[in-house]
Amino acid sequence: MEVVVTRNIPSAALNVLNKRFKVDLWQSDDIIPRETLISKIKAKDGLLCLLTDKIDKEVLDSAGDRLQAVSTISVGVDHINRSECTMRGIKIGYTPEVLTAATAEFAVGLLLSTSRRIVEGTHAAKRSNSVCFFILCQKYKVTNDVTACVLVLLVDDKTTDRVGTILILRIANFSHSYFFKKDKAFEENLWVHFASFPDLLRESDFIISCCSFNQSTDGVFDKEAFKQMKNSAIFVNIARGGVVNQDDLYDALSRNVIRGAGLDVTTPEPLPTDHPLFTLDNCVVTPHIGSASEKTRTEMTMLAVENLICALENRAMPAQY
Amino acid sequence: MEVVVTRNIPSAALNVLNKRFKVDLWQSDDIIPRETLISKIKAKDGLLCLLTDKIDKEVLDSAGDRLQAVSTISVGVDHINRSECTMRGIKIGYTPEVLTAATAEFAVGLLLSTSRRIVEGTHAAKRSNSVCFFILCQKYKVTNDVTACVLVLLVDDKTTDRVGTILILRIANFSHSYFFKKDKAFEENLWVHFASFPDLLRESDFIISCCSFNQSTDGVFDKEAFKQMKNSAIFVNIARGGVVNQDDLYDALSRNVIRGAGLDVTTPEPLPTDHPLFTLDNCVVTPHIGSASEKTRTEMTMLAVENLICALENRAMPAQY
Repeated sequence: MEVVVTRNIPSAALNVLNKRFKVDLWQSDDIIPRETLISKIKAKDGLLCLLTDKIDKEVLDSAGDRLQAVSTISVGVDHINRSECTMRGIKIGYTPEVLTAATAEFAVGLLLSTSRRIVEGTHAAKRSNSVCFFILCQKYKVTNDVTACVLVLLVDDKTTDRVGTILILRIANFSHSYFFKKDKAFEENLWVHFASFPDLLRESDFIISCCSFNQSTDGVFDKEAFKQMKNSAIFVNIARGGVVNQDDLYDALSRNVIRGAGLDVTTPEPLPTDHPLFTLDNCVVTPHIGSASEKTRTEMTMLAVENLICALENRAMPAQY
Repeated sequence: MEVVVTRNIPSAALNVLNKRFKVDLWQSDDIIPRETLISKIKAKDGLLCLLTDKIDKEVLDSAGDRLQAVSTISVGVDHINRSECTMRGIKIGYTPEVLTAATAEFAVGLLLSTSRRIVEGTHAAKRSNSVCFFILCQKYKVTNDVTACVLVLLVDDKTTDRVGTILILRIANFSHSYFFKKDKAFEENLWVHFASFPDLLRESDFIISCCSFNQSTDGVFDKEAFKQMKNSAIFVNIARGGVVNQDDLYDALSRNVIRGAGLDVTTPEPLPTDHPLFTLDNCVVTPHIGSASEKTRTEMTMLAVENLICALENRAMPAQY
């Protein structure tokens, strides 16, 4: 059988695939061009892809009848047309759980990098011989430290529950944590309280978006949402770029409607280097590296490989979506 | 009575001083030049200073007999010649506790910014349209995530105990934490275990220096110490620049003896912009902003002002060193 792999993957994972299948590899650290993917996938049995590869009807049409499985090295599956896959009997594999701890850890790091202005601090230190230990902090205003409260936005999704739960554990000792979920199935505890979305926007100092991207969260962080937040609020997005209206975010950041934003996810990815968000001192943009530790990315890839093998050999996938 | 203030301080604090004393203010956000300080302090009764001001014998000589108190807006007092002050009957005030939470929080942020390569990530995102979601992480190696253990170096000092204790609380949910202290007075608990300094250097993935700077810690992180650390180790310094031999650190970072360093403190401060450490991708330098939240810096300044007033009015200082 033949499979397409859309990016350089760790050699251990590639070796496993090579032993069983004929592998058509896009041998690059960069995103596979769409035309190349459409061409390569013709008459293949399986696809190992990333969240940067849009697997829509056109790609599936090009693949044809032989395609049995799409295995993505990600926990999000919003880049895959699930209903088209279902209609064609194509199985979808994904990589939950193995990235939960790394992503929650990264969220805390991105939050603190943004709120404590660590990235700006490194620039200030490199640029000026007199920047040291501000007293007035006028140029270097940091409104909130550990007295702040935290919002974790969750929706009805088993995956974001996991990241959100670990995130709360990580951050619980820093501050009061609040927790938003559409239903109340998740039990309240010492740090977790339920509140409506508008209440949380109004009351929170830090807002971390870690929800799934779907119809109900599409553009949910828009002009109206930023207006409800405190002027001192820090907004962090580790979910998907689509939950944010980026024009509204740029406007809110440049007019100090909110104080800062840390974005590990954007629309599109990668964000063009001339994007206006890159011009703002109070916006920290990282290139979707929430799960990018060597250990975690290797575990994700090995799980995706195992998913693909099981699907093509008609065995139960360890993580079928 | 007359006092010198060596930097712009929040107006609330300045107002309190102005009501009681004639204030000679260095009205700047930059460090007061040494000659200016030596000139201004002549025949003054009190001094409100920062850790960037070296209060040595020459400065005290220039002040003369009238000087009764040196009040520093910092928890460290290594910039003040304590024995000279004691001989002259000059009281020293400092600002413990009020900065503990902010500094511990910052330490976690600096650790994650360095270990998860958040600063490098922002540069990569700005510079290249193809940098996104590395799989191999070859250019972007992050060895350790949450499975790592942590070292917190403490010595026999009540101040560093406080920061260290809060730091451990903050970081406990991330990983196994270890704790080094010269004596065993601090009680062991679930996350805190005692170990020798060499054992900790060898076994730790993350090493956070939050000790006092004194004779026993002067240059303790040197070539020999870095050699004992893992090649994957991340070293973070929130203590004082003097605990590190910076030439040895540069050598260790550039030859990959250790993987990365996050430094909020350096020798000197500010670090000259042409310093070799600034040329390294795996070194994150911030301009001593561990306590630089508006709330915390204001509380520190108000405490230092209260210390100075009490000393000059012969009442007990709220925080005498």
